[in-house]
Amino acid sequence: MSHNSFGHLFRFTTWGESHGPALGVVVDGCPPGLDIDRDDIQRQLDRRKPGQSRFTTQRREADRVEILSGVFEDERTGGLKTTGTPIALEIRNTDQRSRDYSEIRDTYRPGHADYTYDRKYGIRDYRGGGRSSARETAARVAAGAVARLVIPEVKIRASLVQMGPRRIDRDRFDWAEVDRNPFFCADADAAREWETYLDGLRKKGNSVGAVIEVVAEGVPAGWGAPVYGKLSADLAAAMMSINAVKGVEIGAGMGAAELTGTENADQMRAGQTAPVFLSNKAGGILGGISNGDPVVVRFAVKPTSSILTPRQTVTSDNRDADIVTRGRHDPCVGIRAVPIGEAMMACVLADHFLRHRGQTGRDGPVGFPR
Amino acid sequence: MSHNSFGHLFRFTTWGESHGPALGVVVDGCPPGLDIDRDDIQRQLDRRKPGQSRFTTQRREADRVEILSGVFEDERTGGLKTTGTPIALEIRNTDQRSRDYSEIRDTYRPGHADYTYDRKYGIRDYRGGGRSSARETAARVAAGAVARLVIPEVKIRASLVQMGPRRIDRDRFDWAEVDRNPFFCADADAAREWETYLDGLRKKGNSVGAVIEVVAEGVPAGWGAPVYGKLSADLAAAMMSINAVKGVEIGAGMGAAELTGTENADQMRAGQTAPVFLSNKAGGILGGISNGDPVVVRFAVKPTSSILTPRQTVTSDNRDADIVTRGRHDPCVGIRAVPIGEAMMACVLADHFLRHRGQTGRDGPVGFPR
Amino acid sequence: MSHNSFGHLFRFTTWGESHGPALGVVVDGCPPGLDIDRDDIQRQLDRRKPGQSRFTTQRREADRVEILSGVFEDERTGGLKTTGTPIALEIRNTDQRSRDYSEIRDTYRPGHADYTYDRKYGIRDYRGGGRSSARETAARVAAGAVARLVIPEVKIRASLVQMGPRRIDRDRFDWAEVDRNPFFCADADAAREWETYLDGLRKKGNSVGAVIEVVAEGVPAGWGAPVYGKLSADLAAAMMSINAVKGVEIGAGMGAAELTGTENADQMRAGQTAPVFLSNKAGGILGGISNGDPVVVRFAVKPTSSILTPRQTVTSDNRDADIVTRGRHDPCVGIRAVPIGEAMMACVLADHFLRHRGQTGRDGPVGFPR
Amino acid sequence: MSHNSFGHLFRFTTWGESHGPALGVVVDGCPPGLDIDRDDIQRQLDRRKPGQSRFTTQRREADRVEILSGVFEDERTGGLKTTGTPIALEIRNTDQRSRDYSEIRDTYRPGHADYTYDRKYGIRDYRGGGRSSARETAARVAAGAVARLVIPEVKIRASLVQMGPRRIDRDRFDWAEVDRNPFFCADADAAREWETYLDGLRKKGNSVGAVIEVVAEGVPAGWGAPVYGKLSADLAAAMMSINAVKGVEIGAGMGAAELTGTENADQMRAGQTAPVFLSNKAGGILGGISNGDPVVVRFAVKPTSSILTPRQTVTSDNRDADIVTRGRHDPCVGIRAVPIGEAMMACVLADHFLRHRGQTGRDGPVGFPR
Repeated sequence: MSHNSFGHLFRFTTWGESHGPALGVVVDGCPPGLDIDRDDIQRQLDRRKPGQSRFTTQRREADRVEILSGVFEDERTGGLKTTGTPIALEIRNTDQRSRDYSEIRDTYRPGHADYTYDRKYGIRDYRGGGRSSARETAARVAAGAVARLVIPEVKIRASLVQMGPRRIDRDRFDWAEVDRNPFFCADADAAREWETYLDGLRKKGNSVGAVIEVVAEGVPAGWGAPVYGKLSADLAAAMMSINAVKGVEIGAGMGAAELTGTENADQMRAGQTAPVFLSNKAGGILGGISNGDPVVVRFAVKPTSSILTPRQTVTSDNRDADIVTRGRHDPCVGIRAVPIGEAMMACVLADHFLRHRGQTGRDGPVGFPR
Repeated sequence: MSHNSFGHLFRFTTWGESHGPALGVVVDGCPPGLDIDRDDIQRQLDRRKPGQSRFTTQRREADRVEILSGVFEDERTGGLKTTGTPIALEIRNTDQRSRDYSEIRDTYRPGHADYTYDRKYGIRDYRGGGRSSARETAARVAAGAVARLVIPEVKIRASLVQMGPRRIDRDRFDWAEVDRNPFFCADADAAREWETYLDGLRKKGNSVGAVIEVVAEGVPAGWGAPVYGKLSADLAAAMMSINAVKGVEIGAGMGAAELTGTENADQMRAGQTAPVFLSNKAGGILGGISNGDPVVVRFAVKPTSSILTPRQTVTSDNRDADIVTRGRHDPCVGIRAVPIGEAMMACVLADHFLRHRGQTGRDGPVGFPR
Repeated sequence: MSHNSFGHLFRFTTWGESHGPALGVVVDGCPPGLDIDRDDIQRQLDRRKPGQSRFTTQRREADRVEILSGVFEDERTGGLKTTGTPIALEIRNTDQRSRDYSEIRDTYRPGHADYTYDRKYGIRDYRGGGRSSARETAARVAAGAVARLVIPEVKIRASLVQMGPRRIDRDRFDWAEVDRNPFFCADADAAREWETYLDGLRKKGNSVGAVIEVVAEGVPAGWGAPVYGKLSADLAAAMMSINAVKGVEIGAGMGAAELTGTENADQMRAGQTAPVFLSNKAGGILGGISNGDPVVVRFAVKPTSSILTPRQTVTSDNRDADIVTRGRHDPCVGIRAVPIGEAMMACVLADHFLRHRGQTGRDGPVGFPR
Repeated sequence: MSHNSFGHLFRFTTWGESHGPALGVVVDGCPPGLDIDRDDIQRQLDRRKPGQSRFTTQRREADRVEILSGVFEDERTGGLKTTGTPIALEIRNTDQRSRDYSEIRDTYRPGHADYTYDRKYGIRDYRGGGRSSARETAARVAAGAVARLVIPEVKIRASLVQMGPRRIDRDRFDWAEVDRNPFFCADADAAREWETYLDGLRKKGNSVGAVIEVVAEGVPAGWGAPVYGKLSADLAAAMMSINAVKGVEIGAGMGAAELTGTENADQMRAGQTAPVFLSNKAGGILGGISNGDPVVVRFAVKPTSSILTPRQTVTSDNRDADIVTRGRHDPCVGIRAVPIGEAMMACVLADHFLRHRGQTGRDGPVGFPR
C-alpha cells in the first residue's frame, strides 16, 4: 500500500502538515556505502524553498534538514556514508504564522483539497492546507537528493517550458539559463516575458498554470519493468502525485495522438556500441523500458487555487459564500515544481535501477551486439 | 512490487504471451457474495477483441474466457457468486498463425518494445510481440469486468475523442453513438470522417494515434488517498501502463497550464445534500480525492509501430536495415484502447473503494453538512 | 497486499479450489535466462502428490503441470529458458470425486477452516475444503521448483523429525534415508517405528501431528533485511502460511528460552575465507541476516482434523451435532508437508537473494577480511 | 517491500539507531477521528523502557515521545484526534553514553548481528548495536499504542511464561499479577523464584532466554486472509521480527505435533449467538482466520548475547579473539519483550481489522446462524 510511500526497492515515506511542528521523510532501501552530505540535500531543498523571489510565496522557511538515521562516519574520510538502514530526514517548521484560520476552516477554497479532505476524513488540519500543502513536497525533494546518490551517472535537469499560454522557444533552449532566472526557465527570453506577465497576474490577485519538462540523461537501456511496473507508468504516478498536477506526458505525449506511424516511430541506425535513435518521440521509453536515449517527461501544474479574486463557494454547513484567499501564496506554483519534478524523476529511476539489478544482476543492459 | 500486478486491495496479476498457449489474470481481494456471470466478462472481452472491423487487426481470436476459481454456485439462484478467494480467468490462444518470425527475431521494429526487451532480458518471445503484445490487454479487460461488479453504482464509459489531428465536436457528444460506429466514438459525424481518413492511411500502409476519454459517473466524494496513493496518480499509472500510451490527463489536463486561477478553480454552490460544482476542470478529483463529480481521464495512444511503410532500423548484430512489418496490425490501435481504458478505470476505482472502506469504515463520504 | 501472493522480488500468486477445474500459480520477477524444464517442476510435484502410500490421502491426482507463459525456446539447446516475464503454471484437477457434500456443507468439522471461512465470507466452496484444501500447496511446490533455479548453489532438503511424541534420533540422521521411506524421514529406524504407529492410528480412525525440519546449505552470509524483512520473519510467515502449521522455529527455536547466554551464542574461530561458527544454535541467521551457516527451520503440523472418530460440533443453523468425516484423508498430513516446507524455503531464499542483490549489487557478502 | 515497514492498511515504518540522535516511527493508514492522547503512547513506552529494575539494562532513557503529525485538535473536547494522515512519532536519544566502542567495532560478539550486518552492508553504526539494538523496539511499542486505538474492543495482554527452564504454573495464572513484579509474570510464585534465579545468573555475568505469551480477547470471528495473509502467518512474522526471537507458536504450537486428531480439534457446541469452542488448541485461528476465541501467541527470546563471560570470537581482520561484553545489558531481554509482543499483536490485529473491513464491508463476521 502506498498512501504516503512511494517506490519499491528505493522507497520513501513522507509525513507532516504545513503548520505542524515538523515534516519529514524516511528513505528505505538505499544501498550502503554511498557518500552522503547534508549539504547536498540542503542544496536541493534550497532550490525549492519559498520566498526566493516575488514570484513564490513569501512564507519564510529555512527548510533546514536534519539527518537522524541511516548514516555513519567513514573513518577514513570523516564524511558520512549511508549504512543501508532507513535514512530519516526531518525539517522543523519555523514560520507557521499564527493567524486566524477560521475562514478556511469553514469555507472551502474552490479548486482546493479542503472540501475533499473534509468529506473523506471528517476532520483535517486546515491550517495552511495541512497535509495537502505544498510543504509536503520538501520531503520529496529531500528524498530525491538521496536518490541522486544512487544513480550518480544519471544527470537530471528540468525547466519550466510553458507558463499560461506562453511556451518557450525550443531553439533558444539552454540548460545554463535555468539557474539565471526566477522561473527555472531554459529560455532566457521567455523568462523575461514571463516576468512581466506574472507580475501582471500577481497584482490582479490571480494565478496561472505551467508545464515543467524533466530530462534524465545517462539512463542505460533496460530499466523499467513490464507491464504494470513500466518506467513510464511509475513516472506518470510520480508526477501526478505532486500537488496540482493534472497531466503527464512522456516524449511526444498527448501530441503522439496527432502523429502517423511513419512520423512517430524513432528510426534507428547502427552505432558504436548500441543503435542510435534518429529522434526521441519515445521520450527514451519503449514498452515501459528505457532505450538508452534521454528520458523526457512533462507535466502540467494547474494555477494556484488560493487567489485574491473573490470566488463562489460553499461553507461546511452548506451555505453559499464568496471567498478571497489572503495569505502568502505562489502566483504560479509550477515554478517551485521544477526541483520537485527532478526529485520524483530521481526517485523513480533509483527505484528502477535497483529493481533491474535485483532481477537481472546487471546495472544496465545485456551486451550488444549479442 | 508490481511488475505484472496492479492495485492493492482489488489486485490483479496478468500473465501470457501473444503466441503462447494462453493468457490470463488472477483477481485477488474481490469482495465475497457478488453475483458474477461469465457472460458479463465475455461481453467486455468481445468489445476489445480483434477482427471486428477492417480498422482493427484481422487476427481471429474468440477470446473465450474461462473462470477457473473463486466462484461458487448460489444455491438459491443457481447463478455464480464470488467467494472472496482469487478469481482466475483464462483465455486460450487459438489463432497463433504459424509463420516465419525470423525478421522480427533479429530486426528491431522502430517504436516497438523489441529492442528494449532484448536489452533488458537478453531473451524474448518475439512471436507476435510476446509479452509486449496488445493481447495482454485482454486480461485487463477481464479484470475490469470483475471490478465493475464491485462498484455497481458507478457508470464507466469511454469514447475515442481524437484520431490523428481530428477531434470530435463536443456539442455533438452523445454516449449513445459509441456503440454505433467502429471507433467507439460519441460523435457520429466525426466517426464518419474518421472512416475515410483511416481507410486512406491504412491503404498507404500507415497508422495513426488517438485520444480516449474515460468518464466515471457516480463516484462518491472521498475516494482516493493522499499523497502517493492519489486517485489521480493511480489513474495516471493505470492508463500509462496500457501499451502505446504516451500521455494522461485528468480534467483540464495539460490544458490546465494555460488557465488562470479564476478560470481553473471550479466554483461551488450549495446543493441539496452536497455542494454543486459549477464546472469540472478538476475532472472530479481534488487533492487526489474524488469530489463527487464525474471522474474524467484522457489518454493518448501513439500510432501502431508495425506498419507497411519501410523504416530505417538496426539488427541485433548492429547492422543497418530497413523493415516493413507485414502481418495483421491495427491501423489505429487507439480504437481498441477504449474498452481497455474503461477496464483500468474500473480497476482503480474498485481498489480505491475498498481502500477507502478499509480505512474509514464508510463506502462514501462523511455526512454533509457536518 | 498479500492475501494470495508471497514474496517481493520473487513473488508468486496462487489460485484454485480443491474441486474446481484447476489450480495454479503465477511466478513474477524470476530472472531471465535460466534453464527451466517442465520435468523438474513435475518431479517436485510428484513428491507432494497424494496417493503414494497408504499413509497419505487416496485421492488420485496426476498433478500434471503445464507451463503457460514466461518461457521461450533456447535456439542453441532446444530447451526452455525463462524470459523474465510471469511464469504461469497450471494443474487441472481430475479426481474431484462426485459425491454428496451436504454433510460438510452444513456441519462444521472441528479444527477445520469450514467455520471461519463461513463466518468471514458468508459463502464458500465447501467441496473438499475448497480454497482451504491442502491442494493449494501443489501450487507452492511448483513455485518452489522455479525458485530453486534462481539459487542453484543452495541445497535445500527436509525431513520429518517427529511424529506425534516420537522424535528421530539425531545420531542416526542420514539425508540419504529421506527418499527410502514413505515419511521423508532421515532416520531409518524411526521410519520403521512410525509405520506401525501410524497404521494403528489410521485403523482407529485417528490422525497425528508432526514436525518437519528444513535445512538450506550454501546460503552465503548477508541475505536478509532488517528489521521487518528479516530472513527469519519471512521464513516464519512462509511456514506458518502452510495449512495446519501451528509453530515455527529457527535454529534452537523455542528451546532457546531454556539456554543461558554462554550456551546459546555460537562461538567463532578464524577460518580460511570467513569465520567458522563452532555451533549453529542460530540456525544460520543473526539479526535477521544469514551468517553463512546452514539455515535451519522447523515447523509443527497439527493432526488432520478430518477423522473417522465422531466429534462434537455445530451446524450452520447453530444446532449441536456429531460429525464423522469420511472420505480420503491423510492420517498424518505432516508427511506431505516435507516437500512443501522445502518449496517455501526455496521461495523465501530466492526472494531474499534478489532483494539483497538489488540493494547491494552483490550476490553475497562483502569481502572478508575487509 | 517491507525492510523497515510492517503491515498493509495499518502500516508503520521505523527508523533510528541506538546511538543516533533519535528514533521514530511513521504510522500510515490509521482511521481518522480516533481520540489519541500522547500520554497513552507514553504509558506503553514506559512499560518497555530500560532501567526500571535491576533485571533490565541500566541505560537511562526517558523515551519521551513527541507526536509530530497526523493529529488535530478536536474543537469540542480540546483533545487530539487522528486525521487519517501519517502519524509521526519521535523519541530523542538522550543517554548515548560516550565511551570507547573500539572493541565491538572490530570484534564480533558471538550470537549478535555485528557480524552479519558487517558482511551484508560493509559498514554499520556499531555504537550500542546501531540499528540492530533493542532500542528499535521502542518505535514498535509506540506504533502498537496507536494500533490499540483502532481496535478498542480487543483486550491485549501478555505475560512471561517461562524463564530458562522454569515455566509458570498455569493453575496460578492471574493477569492481575503481571503489573506486580518486575517480570510481567502472571504467576506470583514463579516471579519470586525467577528473582533469585536471575540474580544468580546476573552476578555470574550470564543471561537467559524466556517465553512470552500474548493473548488477545475480543477478536471477532472472520479476521485474517487466506492463504499467504493468514492471521497466523502475519503474527509469526511480527513476533519473529522482534530482536532475539527464535520461535513462534499459535495455540498448541509446536506441541500440536504430539497430539492426535481427537485431542487436537476443538469441539464445538451451539451457543447463544455463535458456537462455543470446548477448548482452544487452535489459539483462536483456523485456516488463518480468527474463530472468535482468544488469539494466543507464544514466542521464545534467546538469551542476551552481550555477556560478561568471555567467549571465543573473531575480529574483522579474521583473527581469533576472546570477548567480554561490558556495558549495560539485560540479563533476560525477554522481560522487556512482553510489551513489545503486545504491541506487535495490536498492530497485526489492527491491520487485519482494516483489511477485513475493506474486503467485506463488515467489522466482524456475517450473521449467525445464517
